[in-house]
Amino acid sequence: MDPYILRCEPCRQTFDPDTHLYNCPHCSGNLDVLYDYQDLARRLRPNRITESPDGSIWRYSPLLPVDPPPGGGTPLHHVGWTPLYELPALAIRAGRSRLLVKDDGRNPTASFKDRASAVVVAHALSVGIRTIATASSGNAGAALAGMAAAAGLEAVIFVPKTAPPAKVAQLLVFGARVFLVDGTYDDAFDLTLEAAEAYGWYCRNTGYNPYTLEGKKTGALEIWEQAPGSFRPDAPPLNIFVSVGDGNIIAGIHKGFKDLLLLGWIDHIPRLYGVQAEGSAAVAEAYRDGRSEIRPVAARTLADSICVDLPRDGLRALRAATETGGAYVTVTDEEILAAIADLGSAGVFAEPAGAAAFAGLKAAVREGLVKDEDDVLVFNTGNGLKDIAAAQRAVAPAPVIEPTLQALQRILPQHVEMDNR
Amino acid sequence: MDPYILRCEPCRQTFDPDTHLYNCPHCSGNLDVLYDYQDLARRLRPNRITESPDGSIWRYSPLLPVDPPPGGGTPLHHVGWTPLYELPALAIRAGRSRLLVKDDGRNPTASFKDRASAVVVAHALSVGIRTIATASSGNAGAALAGMAAAAGLEAVIFVPKTAPPAKVAQLLVFGARVFLVDGTYDDAFDLTLEAAEAYGWYCRNTGYNPYTLEGKKTGALEIWEQAPGSFRPDAPPLNIFVSVGDGNIIAGIHKGFKDLLLLGWIDHIPRLYGVQAEGSAAVAEAYRDGRSEIRPVAARTLADSICVDLPRDGLRALRAATETGGAYVTVTDEEILAAIADLGSAGVFAEPAGAAAFAGLKAAVREGLVKDEDDVLVFNTGNGLKDIAAAQRAVAPAPVIEPTLQALQRILPQHVEMDNR
Repeated sequence: MDPYILRCEPCRQTFDPDTHLYNCPHCSGNLDVLYDYQDLARRLRPNRITESPDGSIWRYSPLLPVDPPPGGGTPLHHVGWTPLYELPALAIRAGRSRLLVKDDGRNPTASFKDRASAVVVAHALSVGIRTIATASSGNAGAALAGMAAAAGLEAVIFVPKTAPPAKVAQLLVFGARVFLVDGTYDDAFDLTLEAAEAYGWYCRNTGYNPYTLEGKKTGALEIWEQAPGSFRPDAPPLNIFVSVGDGNIIAGIHKGFKDLLLLGWIDHIPRLYGVQAEGSAAVAEAYRDGRSEIRPVAARTLADSICVDLPRDGLRALRAATETGGAYVTVTDEEILAAIADLGSAGVFAEPAGAAAFAGLKAAVREGLVKDEDDVLVFNTGNGLKDIAAAQRAVAPAPVIEPTLQALQRILPQHVEMDNR
Repeated sequence: MDPYILRCEPCRQTFDPDTHLYNCPHCSGNLDVLYDYQDLARRLRPNRITESPDGSIWRYSPLLPVDPPPGGGTPLHHVGWTPLYELPALAIRAGRSRLLVKDDGRNPTASFKDRASAVVVAHALSVGIRTIATASSGNAGAALAGMAAAAGLEAVIFVPKTAPPAKVAQLLVFGARVFLVDGTYDDAFDLTLEAAEAYGWYCRNTGYNPYTLEGKKTGALEIWEQAPGSFRPDAPPLNIFVSVGDGNIIAGIHKGFKDLLLLGWIDHIPRLYGVQAEGSAAVAEAYRDGRSEIRPVAARTLADSICVDLPRDGLRALRAATETGGAYVTVTDEEILAAIADLGSAGVFAEPAGAAAFAGLKAAVREGLVKDEDDVLVFNTGNGLKDIAAAQRAVAPAPVIEPTLQALQRILPQHVEMDNR
């Protein structure tokens, strides 16, 4: 772990991390963790990371604001370093010659959010905090509950009572204290802030706690290592598609690439595309209107992980696209369901928010936003097992048959290979 | 890939793998894949494997009957090499000082079965097969569907209509042709054999296709690499707990260790403990009665993955325990549910069949089968997200509250740290 300061993104005021925990007290802006990049670049060579035997986010500890957690054998030590797939058949479905998919459904609690919660939990361990609270639409809570359980800490989770049952069951199995809030994610968010202050808990809320972004930036650091060809000077531009709810994931990926640029380890940042559900598009609307102010919406989409009225990290999420030459696109729920089946046909089972990124790629190709020669990468942020109800809507049901060959032959008179790939 | 023969385990007759596909035509016994171990040991040094940069089962390709699938970037290339956790808090719950958990819920389709299906799919690719069928209680089918999708092959899956909805949804999302059989797993098994013959499909059925065992043995090979201390001559005995349904997993783990022994890379095999649900205990009953013949039962347990009337690999499963100094234990459904919560409290979310292994460890400790100084390892064979209904039964439901601090304070007058670890 290297020394760092916290700096407010909108108003640029700086804070000492030893005395300051959350958002900017002046403008409520989100804080960035900033290192002395020149000094760090002098002392640190990239091969110290790229040759690390550690197959987790802790390979990046020289670039994180926390030390790796003590010990070495729990799920907390096995977050990240998820596979980067190259899927030719899926590329065709998206009208591309080549397609990369980064599969964060393979994290310990089956979503990208483990990256953020691992760093927050490691920070809590390092300063002796015992209880961490968070609001969550499901995945962030499961990640906090799982990582806290692995570390022997206590988690308190506030989720909208509409969260998918799989996500709530996961929280409870991890031993978290769970409250189902009769309201939206945003109601749960505000209640968590109040409760954390009243009970003296450490608050992990996304877009409020500055360490979540540092955890999430590891997604970018892994792409840098796993797709080295895309960072050569003569490489075709890499276009990365990420679904956007509160905006903290795309902002985290942007932060990771910004760190690499400031270290001089890359000479350009890939184009970042934010994908929002049509019914939950606060950031996409600001992008479309050329506004830098994010206005809340009455969010409604089946992709619960990105169903957010007021994106808590909207400004940084917007800049992730505008500062990298990317864009924002919106997709319908029907397009998200189709994308679940698309990814599944290549062996990747994504939850709706994860599939939305692939739907966004298809939309961007349709709209001519991505050139033929460009490379594309879709970030799957969660496992499809998290939301079975959505998966069931994405496919036709299977027939029930008596266990006899005759019953089968009535449905399938002769075998014709399916033309589905 | 090395040359090999197929040999029937009960009657010892040998077969040429180029002309023979399935079980022994004489005694219906399961076939083992056997190499020329002396020759292999002369040509192959363990460090060719232990220094492999490949983080998947394909690091073991010199010990597999198939070549790695072509290409390198799909879920099929990212099976196995799952983490081995060391969980101190969970060790205490089992009355142990140290506890290892191998988490196969982190495979691409979230179960151990990916290991078997990957090898079967790689074999199909190498000989030009386009369609593979299997019977499944859920996981094997999902694994075949996912691996086939990744490889661009077609999968036909027969599952009992009682399979958990999550598992069926997963099959369908992967684009498999799915039939819900109005009967038991055993009915689905027999129908698959008939259908494969009638339609000319390649049959992956567990305990029938000899390659599933070779895929499953990679679980043992990984333990050998990930827990090297347990294979030193002076190490305390390692006791491995595996849940047993059709028996192919524990037989596969046994096979992996037998291969290592024949290569001279280890000098003893860990003790293998089979864990069965009390209501589905055909192998455990044979063990208890000292029989080598497996009699079918009318299976009934909430752990659907190990709910099997007639274990298709029962004989080899029995021998995995008797030949290694292990044993069989049975656990109740209530003990399985408690084990889901136990594992969850350490950050590992297991499906019932996976949690059964931990329940079995607790039973074995209670029965004095494991000495204090012995090492123990529990194999979690599936992710808890596969069966949310069971998880919900393992925990108390969360309260619903209005989104106000007052509503929270009515339930939680003051914060007292939970004493749950």
